[in-house]
Amino acid sequence: MAKIKVGVAGYGTIGQRLADGVAMQGDMELVGIADLAPTLAIQALRENDMIGANGVKYDLYLVGGANEADFAAHDIPVAGTFEDLCKKVDVMLDSSPGGVGAKNKELYEKLGVKAIFQGGEKNSVADVFFHGYANYEKGLGADYLKLTSCNTTGLIRTVDCLDRAFGVERVAITIIRRVADPGDYHRGLTNALQMDKAPSHQAVDLMTIMPHVEATGILVHTPVTHGHIITVLVSAKDGKKITKEAALEAFQAHPRIRVVTIDEGFKGNASLFKYARDLGNRRGDMYEIGLWADSIVETGNDIMFAINIPQESVTIPETIDGIRATMKMQLTREEGTAETNKYLKIGRFKK
Amino acid sequence: MAKIKVGVAGYGTIGQRLADGVAMQGDMELVGIADLAPTLAIQALRENDMIGANGVKYDLYLVGGANEADFAAHDIPVAGTFEDLCKKVDVMLDSSPGGVGAKNKELYEKLGVKAIFQGGEKNSVADVFFHGYANYEKGLGADYLKLTSCNTTGLIRTVDCLDRAFGVERVAITIIRRVADPGDYHRGLTNALQMDKAPSHQAVDLMTIMPHVEATGILVHTPVTHGHIITVLVSAKDGKKITKEAALEAFQAHPRIRVVTIDEGFKGNASLFKYARDLGNRRGDMYEIGLWADSIVETGNDIMFAINIPQESVTIPETIDGIRATMKMQLTREEGTAETNKYLKIGRFKK
Amino acid sequence: MAKIKVGVAGYGTIGQRLADGVAMQGDMELVGIADLAPTLAIQALRENDMIGANGVKYDLYLVGGANEADFAAHDIPVAGTFEDLCKKVDVMLDSSPGGVGAKNKELYEKLGVKAIFQGGEKNSVADVFFHGYANYEKGLGADYLKLTSCNTTGLIRTVDCLDRAFGVERVAITIIRRVADPGDYHRGLTNALQMDKAPSHQAVDLMTIMPHVEATGILVHTPVTHGHIITVLVSAKDGKKITKEAALEAFQAHPRIRVVTIDEGFKGNASLFKYARDLGNRRGDMYEIGLWADSIVETGNDIMFAINIPQESVTIPETIDGIRATMKMQLTREEGTAETNKYLKIGRFKK
Amino acid sequence: MAKIKVGVAGYGTIGQRLADGVAMQGDMELVGIADLAPTLAIQALRENDMIGANGVKYDLYLVGGANEADFAAHDIPVAGTFEDLCKKVDVMLDSSPGGVGAKNKELYEKLGVKAIFQGGEKNSVADVFFHGYANYEKGLGADYLKLTSCNTTGLIRTVDCLDRAFGVERVAITIIRRVADPGDYHRGLTNALQMDKAPSHQAVDLMTIMPHVEATGILVHTPVTHGHIITVLVSAKDGKKITKEAALEAFQAHPRIRVVTIDEGFKGNASLFKYARDLGNRRGDMYEIGLWADSIVETGNDIMFAINIPQESVTIPETIDGIRATMKMQLTREEGTAETNKYLKIGRFKK
Repeated sequence: MAKIKVGVAGYGTIGQRLADGVAMQGDMELVGIADLAPTLAIQALRENDMIGANGVKYDLYLVGGANEADFAAHDIPVAGTFEDLCKKVDVMLDSSPGGVGAKNKELYEKLGVKAIFQGGEKNSVADVFFHGYANYEKGLGADYLKLTSCNTTGLIRTVDCLDRAFGVERVAITIIRRVADPGDYHRGLTNALQMDKAPSHQAVDLMTIMPHVEATGILVHTPVTHGHIITVLVSAKDGKKITKEAALEAFQAHPRIRVVTIDEGFKGNASLFKYARDLGNRRGDMYEIGLWADSIVETGNDIMFAINIPQESVTIPETIDGIRATMKMQLTREEGTAETNKYLKIGRFKK
Repeated sequence: MAKIKVGVAGYGTIGQRLADGVAMQGDMELVGIADLAPTLAIQALRENDMIGANGVKYDLYLVGGANEADFAAHDIPVAGTFEDLCKKVDVMLDSSPGGVGAKNKELYEKLGVKAIFQGGEKNSVADVFFHGYANYEKGLGADYLKLTSCNTTGLIRTVDCLDRAFGVERVAITIIRRVADPGDYHRGLTNALQMDKAPSHQAVDLMTIMPHVEATGILVHTPVTHGHIITVLVSAKDGKKITKEAALEAFQAHPRIRVVTIDEGFKGNASLFKYARDLGNRRGDMYEIGLWADSIVETGNDIMFAINIPQESVTIPETIDGIRATMKMQLTREEGTAETNKYLKIGRFKK
Repeated sequence: MAKIKVGVAGYGTIGQRLADGVAMQGDMELVGIADLAPTLAIQALRENDMIGANGVKYDLYLVGGANEADFAAHDIPVAGTFEDLCKKVDVMLDSSPGGVGAKNKELYEKLGVKAIFQGGEKNSVADVFFHGYANYEKGLGADYLKLTSCNTTGLIRTVDCLDRAFGVERVAITIIRRVADPGDYHRGLTNALQMDKAPSHQAVDLMTIMPHVEATGILVHTPVTHGHIITVLVSAKDGKKITKEAALEAFQAHPRIRVVTIDEGFKGNASLFKYARDLGNRRGDMYEIGLWADSIVETGNDIMFAINIPQESVTIPETIDGIRATMKMQLTREEGTAETNKYLKIGRFKK
Repeated sequence: MAKIKVGVAGYGTIGQRLADGVAMQGDMELVGIADLAPTLAIQALRENDMIGANGVKYDLYLVGGANEADFAAHDIPVAGTFEDLCKKVDVMLDSSPGGVGAKNKELYEKLGVKAIFQGGEKNSVADVFFHGYANYEKGLGADYLKLTSCNTTGLIRTVDCLDRAFGVERVAITIIRRVADPGDYHRGLTNALQMDKAPSHQAVDLMTIMPHVEATGILVHTPVTHGHIITVLVSAKDGKKITKEAALEAFQAHPRIRVVTIDEGFKGNASLFKYARDLGNRRGDMYEIGLWADSIVETGNDIMFAINIPQESVTIPETIDGIRATMKMQLTREEGTAETNKYLKIGRFKK
């Protein structure tokens, strides 16, 4: 069977990882990446002779406004224009800066190319606001998907997991947000916690994906770079009780949730980042969210727990799921996510 | 009427502020402070000719094991021994390092001196686990009180406030904890969030003070020094609804809760610290907790909100309340806390 | 003798402290402060019934573009316009945002008011680039002075001190810069050190104030808020040797240099901030720089040492010196700085 | 030719990277690693079926005191005891916790195994205090080497580089030290800079390796995790001038110095960490130090510049050099370092 042809627009923090994720899929071909300037990310690719993940060559295409001479000055080979790339692909993963994706969509529509947008775009850019585990089937055959943002993606993994096991009615979250990514110099916070107005958009987004759930929450920015932590309070439907044991069993069965404990050494978000580096994972990334078994507490009939969101890489699997849905590569959530997991080696740590 | 005579054992972060708080009470006399070594805190006092808050002279007494020569080397005058101090006071505020208070208690018992311990001691050291607003009357005439810790003290102000207004049944908290005080070099965290095992002791302590409430929570340490932030989810008794407006009205009427908004510039914990400095408050301290009006959200019939805990100074008013209770200076919660507030100038910012 | 009348334009981090500094001078009168909006700093003043340092009332004047209704909404009394204020003063301390001072100067010139600008303005705004200890006499009677910035002010204290004792030829500095002030949310850095292009402007500024010295240096931003640390390598003229003992003696005799050691507990910049708070200094400020005796090392004939710069308050004394110079209140550096020190209680800690 | 057989004692931050470095050498065989407990690092290896860098299987041996049952509980295969490992190797890389290496040495001596210790051990543990570029020949055939620590290793690369080009007489450094590694929870610093007593041990160590150079320096700890920054002031012999251009040319020719600029996006230590991740380097590591071209300034005849030290991985190449020297695999510094560089792919980025 012919491989699905995929392009990536925007080779930033997310775009690099989307390209890597596609390069690892046995049933997909990474046709190329597109960007505007010879950023350090592209210079790093050049230093590797344009070879990315899995030994795959990443051909570079230039978006409108790019200056070819700048790339030539860095001896970076260019394969063509963004339009050239679009013409060669079945689906484009658009991780351009917020708002640019909406403009790119005009070209996608003109050329009849499907596209999957990241969380920075408005919901209206897409036909379906998508999450691989929560609403895979809604994305089947759709032309334009938008992925949930990093926190929402990880959060929904757990809420959807409990929902399928017990039926969820209400969710209240506190997001302890990392304020910048490692290497960010354009944003930062120094010795301060910063409030956002409530409710947080992640709670609102969760309700869009899972309309039968009522969700609210408060977000506080913290001066760290390795992974958000979210505390989640979940109430089941009809006042049904969720026990700690039952919740833990459900979480442990989920391929994209890595259940950890403080005792074994996972003391916080930085432990998970270190562990991903020790695993030798490319870029020190982790696709799974962490969930602390020793954070789970019961309150009345409800359950409360804490999760870790590796913000740079967590949306990659669900975006790959999106390709599978939009291209109808697999027709069910179970089959689609299983294929993604297989190629990304997700879930192999499960006992 | 004769002033109540008070001593302070341990002149550290809390002890300095307890001494200042007592020095500001018109109906109390700070007889002296006691410590072990000529710490920087005591050297600072010496640089001010032993004059502390409100122009009051702080006489220094030495606890057992102290080396007088060390104090002489710094030209620090000594007024006597810890036992000398104990003999002169009606009540001792014990802010010694954790565990030392329990030992000191033997002396207090021998001399018939009342004492109020801070959060570092075990509950068993005291007859009453005390909070000025939640259980003032329990402390009336008691010989030994133990104060709630900083987070619990601030948290209970809000829960007790809602409880008196609406009746509270259940509380779920997420504590975003500052990991060190400004100037701490013996503990710290760098670019990491750190998990504690759940439930947090603050939730457990709340239940000890307010046994009719069920509480649980998760605590995450963050690398900042200015003020904890706690998100609080409160459920009223019998499924009664608490509206945002009603909650806000109750909070605004509480003298020790400072309702603020992000829009006016209170962006986080560091804004409140800066504001306290701009007020010219001694040591840049604040006695009130902050509560963000724009963090309050309703969920079902419940209410969720975020508060700021100024960890260095928040327990001072409730400890002063404790003196009033244990000495029966005022016989009701309303009168006792009102006197404390008057002398500490708490609540004058209320419109 | 009539007091010198002083106004302060811009009531931000520096302006608040300038106002406090003037309010503490027995031979000066703080006529008023001017600002644009009811900031938190002004709301804090309002909460204190407009009473600032030393029991002095701070009258508020509005700069052009201010909306009186905004002030009325916060119940903040207004005394008049910025021009009203200018007409009443002998000298204006201009701590407006960078660039605004240059515009204000037109008004100062029109009204014949002297002015002292802070480091954010271009050197060309002033007749003299001023430092109280290094070139007081240059400022005598001048109409417009510009103060050195915080790092340069503190650095020059030490270099001028050594220059007068030994004759300095060359200085090489490394500035370990705090990236934000406590409470800043508009700038920050998270888990990163950030390079500036060399040479740092502070080295260049030093050469402007002390033209017989060759200076260079490198600046690195660090994610902390309490005080810059600078390492300074000083070479004497003609290859003359500076011993550690001689340097230490010179530093200890300087009123605005606080010689400290790691052993006594001054472990870093945060220790000095804590000590200032423990002193009960208003806003937790310190006018002296810290200098670590145990950082001083000899290398060849040169000397190397480390200092701490309390960035919020360090320029206040030298600005007050500037008033004395520009108004010819005292005609020599020794007399001028001594008066400033007396009223600010600087140097009383010296044995 | 038979491969040199190498073992690694201690599979922590350094030990993991030593094992990886050996696994990448075409002329060496990683016989195994040894450790005490099933740490997260070893659990990560287990999750990868004990496969490490370059597809090499890492056999695990247990040091004395290890509990086999603990490893069995994690399903971690064990190949034998530490003594078994020692008997199979030509040289042991000892990255045990400080002090343990000295004890291990008794076994090495008994079995006639050569060993290379890391910076945590005392100098007396070894015959030669070693640096691949500065004194390779001293290590030839020696039984016991001790590597310079991370800062000293990177620093000496630059000083040795200038020394060979111009002759160096004197060095003065300021070390802006990262206080913890990513994932460290046992040490940290929060919103504080921390002083060490001068002179720093790195300056002293430099003089041990390069006895003809006089060195001193000051070290300041900063709350970051990605790479130390050192400013270096170098004076040539006999007052000879070093120009910026000549220094830059020398640095650019050095395989283990990566010359970067702020303008191209290398804004600080975090940029270099990010770049290493973007390169896809295992664990996000970098073997080269960074040197900012736009930090280089001349002062008199001297030169000053800033470098970045990737603390987790910088000593790996020089340790591999040490194997080559102690085993006489290559007899000159040029040949030895060139082989190491070839297998670690160091220097390929040079134009």
